[in-house]
Amino acid sequence: MSTVNEVSDRSTPESGGVRAVTRAFEVLQCFTAVRPVLSLAEIVRESGLPRTTVLRLIDTLVGERMLRHAADGRITVGARLIRLAAFAEAAWAVPEETADRMTRLAQETGETASLYARSGLRRVAVGQSPSPYSLRHVVQVGDEMPLLLGAASTLLVAASGPDAAAHLLDVLPAAERSGVDTDAFRAAVADAQRAGYAVSHGAREPGNSGVAVIVREGDERRPAVVLGLGGPTARFTEERVPVFLEALAAAAADIRRSGLPAALD
Amino acid sequence: MSTVNEVSDRSTPESGGVRAVTRAFEVLQCFTAVRPVLSLAEIVRESGLPRTTVLRLIDTLVGERMLRHAADGRITVGARLIRLAAFAEAAWAVPEETADRMTRLAQETGETASLYARSGLRRVAVGQSPSPYSLRHVVQVGDEMPLLLGAASTLLVAASGPDAAAHLLDVLPAAERSGVDTDAFRAAVADAQRAGYAVSHGAREPGNSGVAVIVREGDERRPAVVLGLGGPTARFTEERVPVFLEALAAAAADIRRSGLPAALD
Repeated sequence: MSTVNEVSDRSTPESGGVRAVTRAFEVLQCFTAVRPVLSLAEIVRESGLPRTTVLRLIDTLVGERMLRHAADGRITVGARLIRLAAFAEAAWAVPEETADRMTRLAQETGETASLYARSGLRRVAVGQSPSPYSLRHVVQVGDEMPLLLGAASTLLVAASGPDAAAHLLDVLPAAERSGVDTDAFRAAVADAQRAGYAVSHGAREPGNSGVAVIVREGDERRPAVVLGLGGPTARFTEERVPVFLEALAAAAADIRRSGLPAALD
Repeated sequence: MSTVNEVSDRSTPESGGVRAVTRAFEVLQCFTAVRPVLSLAEIVRESGLPRTTVLRLIDTLVGERMLRHAADGRITVGARLIRLAAFAEAAWAVPEETADRMTRLAQETGETASLYARSGLRRVAVGQSPSPYSLRHVVQVGDEMPLLLGAASTLLVAASGPDAAAHLLDVLPAAERSGVDTDAFRAAVADAQRAGYAVSHGAREPGNSGVAVIVREGDERRPAVVLGLGGPTARFTEERVPVFLEALAAAAADIRRSGLPAALD
């Protein structure tokens, strides 16, 4: 259905409408829990959209009360987002027992524990429990990351089915593949498929390491889910990575029992 | 700015775009925390939009990963809504001490305590603490209600400034005013302005009563906020309403100190 409509939309006067919706969400996606107030210039820079387009969309989103003008002239959250937030929050809430188990994992290992789900051509953080160290891997729930980089990504692709790596490389826009060693990616996915876990050092950022294990394999209806630990490479030594993997495996087994957010069911 | 753009949008090819954005949010607003999965028929009924429009918008929203197709063919939350939710949730979170004070108020009085803010031509529930009784007033955070009906609405208008009632009746669409006794509304707002509180019985729903007190007066930059108790009229007797008002006044004074959600600052 999606493909048919996309094609028909391009040839009808409605195509501007669909594009406007896409762009409105590009504007909304500039905001995050840690950056809840943005200036017009920041939204223009962040979204990559023309200034006049951003102005028009902000006007529409303010009219919809999804955004509002703050007292200092910048743009922030509108009252109508509460309802969407309540809806999304209920669907994406990590079950309490699972959240507690992730907290325990972060305490045991000293590293930030994150639950990632595959979301189309990206991975998204659906749960997190921070490392107690001040030097730590910081991830916010809702953060999206490329599927070609990092242990959690490699493993999410591996857990999406035998042809997932080849398919992903086929459908990813060229911009997302640029600078990525696709042969190394294919080999890493094959390794992860065999091992059931993945380890990466400096794949997304220099000095940042990650290890991940599978919580659930994906199929057409349910996305793959992995549990990962992230932190400074200096703490992800040859001695400690096996300890991390053991802790991850135990936590993943518990999380399979205590459950995932309702939206992933 | 808003008016200028609205007018120019109507005369340019972009108008379809703005309308599509508005309609996309109408589709998203059909979902709530208690109704997180909807069928196409339910969305058509709830939004009042044509079926073909709803189909096209769902397709776009699924493409944006704001929604997704559930295993049973119905529509539910998509992965990208997590990020918006995290943003809105952070901005709209009721400070812990304020939430605790509302819980205590609900326990003391036995009625559902709600915090309402004015949001344009509506009021929106930004916080709530449920009554311990099984027969109780049920409100969800994010619920929007008309500004012409109920104690909290009357008081929000009264707290928006001396001409707020007249202005509201000027700008409200005729459909929202139909069936409402506007003279009685004006008189109730004037009473609320003098008293600093409002009481209503069966204004929105038969058998449902409410009392409300002002937490903060509104101005152009900050919306008015009120604290209310809602429940069955049988429990809002002449003897108990003064007790409720006293409990509300004490809680409102504490909430002024402990603070409102960041988005209301």
